[in-house]
Amino acid sequence: MGTVPLLKDEDLSPEAAEVFAEIRALRGTDYVNNFWRAMAHDPGGLRALWDRLKVVMAPGALDPLVKEMIYVAVSTANGCDYCIHSHTAAAKGKGMTPAQHAELMAVIGMAMQTNGLVQGLGVEVDEVFRA
Amino acid sequence: MGTVPLLKDEDLSPEAAEVFAEIRALRGTDYVNNFWRAMAHDPGGLRALWDRLKVVMAPGALDPLVKEMIYVAVSTANGCDYCIHSHTAAAKGKGMTPAQHAELMAVIGMAMQTNGLVQGLGVEVDEVFRA
Amino acid sequence: MGTVPLLKDEDLSPEAAEVFAEIRALRGTDYVNNFWRAMAHDPGGLRALWDRLKVVMAPGALDPLVKEMIYVAVSTANGCDYCIHSHTAAAKGKGMTPAQHAELMAVIGMAMQTNGLVQGLGVEVDEVFRA
Amino acid sequence: MGTVPLLKDEDLSPEAAEVFAEIRALRGTDYVNNFWRAMAHDPGGLRALWDRLKVVMAPGALDPLVKEMIYVAVSTANGCDYCIHSHTAAAKGKGMTPAQHAELMAVIGMAMQTNGLVQGLGVEVDEVFRA
Amino acid sequence: MGTVPLLKDEDLSPEAAEVFAEIRALRGTDYVNNFWRAMAHDPGGLRALWDRLKVVMAPGALDPLVKEMIYVAVSTANGCDYCIHSHTAAAKGKGMTPAQHAELMAVIGMAMQTNGLVQGLGVEVDEVFRA
Amino acid sequence: MGTVPLLKDEDLSPEAAEVFAEIRALRGTDYVNNFWRAMAHDPGGLRALWDRLKVVMAPGALDPLVKEMIYVAVSTANGCDYCIHSHTAAAKGKGMTPAQHAELMAVIGMAMQTNGLVQGLGVEVDEVFRA
Repeated sequence: MGTVPLLKDEDLSPEAAEVFAEIRALRGTDYVNNFWRAMAHDPGGLRALWDRLKVVMAPGALDPLVKEMIYVAVSTANGCDYCIHSHTAAAKGKGMTPAQHAELMAVIGMAMQTNGLVQGLGVEVDEVFRA
Repeated sequence: MGTVPLLKDEDLSPEAAEVFAEIRALRGTDYVNNFWRAMAHDPGGLRALWDRLKVVMAPGALDPLVKEMIYVAVSTANGCDYCIHSHTAAAKGKGMTPAQHAELMAVIGMAMQTNGLVQGLGVEVDEVFRA
Repeated sequence: MGTVPLLKDEDLSPEAAEVFAEIRALRGTDYVNNFWRAMAHDPGGLRALWDRLKVVMAPGALDPLVKEMIYVAVSTANGCDYCIHSHTAAAKGKGMTPAQHAELMAVIGMAMQTNGLVQGLGVEVDEVFRA
Repeated sequence: MGTVPLLKDEDLSPEAAEVFAEIRALRGTDYVNNFWRAMAHDPGGLRALWDRLKVVMAPGALDPLVKEMIYVAVSTANGCDYCIHSHTAAAKGKGMTPAQHAELMAVIGMAMQTNGLVQGLGVEVDEVFRA
Repeated sequence: MGTVPLLKDEDLSPEAAEVFAEIRALRGTDYVNNFWRAMAHDPGGLRALWDRLKVVMAPGALDPLVKEMIYVAVSTANGCDYCIHSHTAAAKGKGMTPAQHAELMAVIGMAMQTNGLVQGLGVEVDEVFRA
Repeated sequence: MGTVPLLKDEDLSPEAAEVFAEIRALRGTDYVNNFWRAMAHDPGGLRALWDRLKVVMAPGALDPLVKEMIYVAVSTANGCDYCIHSHTAAAKGKGMTPAQHAELMAVIGMAMQTNGLVQGLGVEVDEVFRA
């Protein structure tokens, strides 16, 4: 399955194993999902990604739940089934209610629709919208 | 410019003029942006879109600012320059700070990156992520 | 402009010039649009594309106007501004009425919307839809 | 499967059940496909979508079969597997022949190809193509 | 499965059978993958595609392995799971090492990320980048 | 222009100024392109991106020119005009010949075409392609 095999814990390089330990510690679960097991073939890339992801998704000016919903929005527009599933699950884990999920879907659908209409009509950006 | 000319107020059908009046009233400004002027060639479509947009973007389980940021996320993944500009402007109008904008960009960039990695690696959805 | 300069008639290789002559003859106009002037840097690619395009867009089981509208639909989903403009112009040249254009836009918008909803909800294909 | 469970008839809210009844009546079949069962978690969104879809896909300036093919084209460019399958099935149900299907695919493939070439070459829109 | 059935050897038209024979000869294997079995419903399209593919993917100014990696890059950005798998397999068959695969993924991920950032920030093309 | 103003050297935070100095040193030019001037609003994001980009695009198992071409391929599929222009310019700066550019375009076009055909036909991944 996939274009690389998923690595089991016993197949990890020491550098990858260290990242897996950090993932487990931060998330408070032993479960490490498939994406990281595919990424582990490239320990340097795994480390860089994990280090950056922790910063980007941490609480900041935006709430972590809002960040997960933004992540779902991008992943949906890109049709990335894996990311849609994993970040929807993450959003639910951070408290997304069914009503919020429904509104997230509705906004995504509306944005997709007007993206198509705007592009098909070739509408030029209003000067007032430029920074 | 565009694939249809932008309609001026004096060129609107009565049904389109009515929608424009509602847009102006709800937004509290006389300015009607180019998208609506392109859509006005199809008064039925304009009416349907405006009526639904009002509902979808209204305060609900999600905050209107969050909705605008989700809108920007989808539009960015789709590369819709017009929508990126108009909804970033709308988000700023609803109070998005530069720090929030920077985090929005960072999450979008991260999501784009992992969308590519996940798809390139052909990672299969973990069973635990399915509803 | 662009990533290659647009070639003028006097800069064309003999093979490219021959394709330009065919384009002019088939279309009954001296005007050759920018795309072909960019493609002309690769005379072999230009020839292959033109030969195939003539076949694909010719009348067949589908009407040429329908083909142009399908072309616009794909180009819109891909956000290819050039292709949207050139094939919308071609569709108008083949008789697309404003009402047909409005319906084309409406279908594109609807498809974009449900594409987003379906992907965001992770809906599995019904067995009855498989050939 | 998916990011929400598919609702069975006995789980529907009254508002959703009413839409399902309309779907069955219009289509003349008891079968309601997975998309609607996922959408039914948001009865308001379900109602809005169904009401608009009926209008957009109805016979008008464009033939319903043409509309289905446009839908397939958008869904293909967006890589929405579900929508490709459901609307190809719908197109077949409305009479799309194998020859028409093959031409639809050929036009989609051609559009995808030139979308890529045009964007990679950065070709600027010809003035003559602007409305 | 799919929107058309996959054709078996015994179902092929003579023209399609001829292309299959060429595929087998060029690749030195009896195995013909699913894509060609789906394309075979349109013998003319099959022939045109195969003839052009042979030229485009042949050794030239770019190495065939580099071409396969470019193919994977496009397919990943488009989320075409089939193409990602088939061209990753082809790249491995042409000698792509695990280290090269990891770097391919890293570049794809980086490009996806900056594509998102650039579009979200609405950055205008520097004059120095234009040909 | 854009959704944020482009920062001039005199507007940079110390952290951003440091990154700009590194960009200038590594590239051996005083010119810093627009993307970095837009990113500079988020000094932390700028630093993280620059540090990772240097690693990813450096010579490794893949040649830097090959990496630039992969970058162009992804950016083209995503329709990111800025990235197409900047990385095509970078590829030329690293020695991409017109013949290589033409083949890059041809492979991108071919991949786009078969991405569309494969997705429209709903072709299932052959078992032999899975790792």
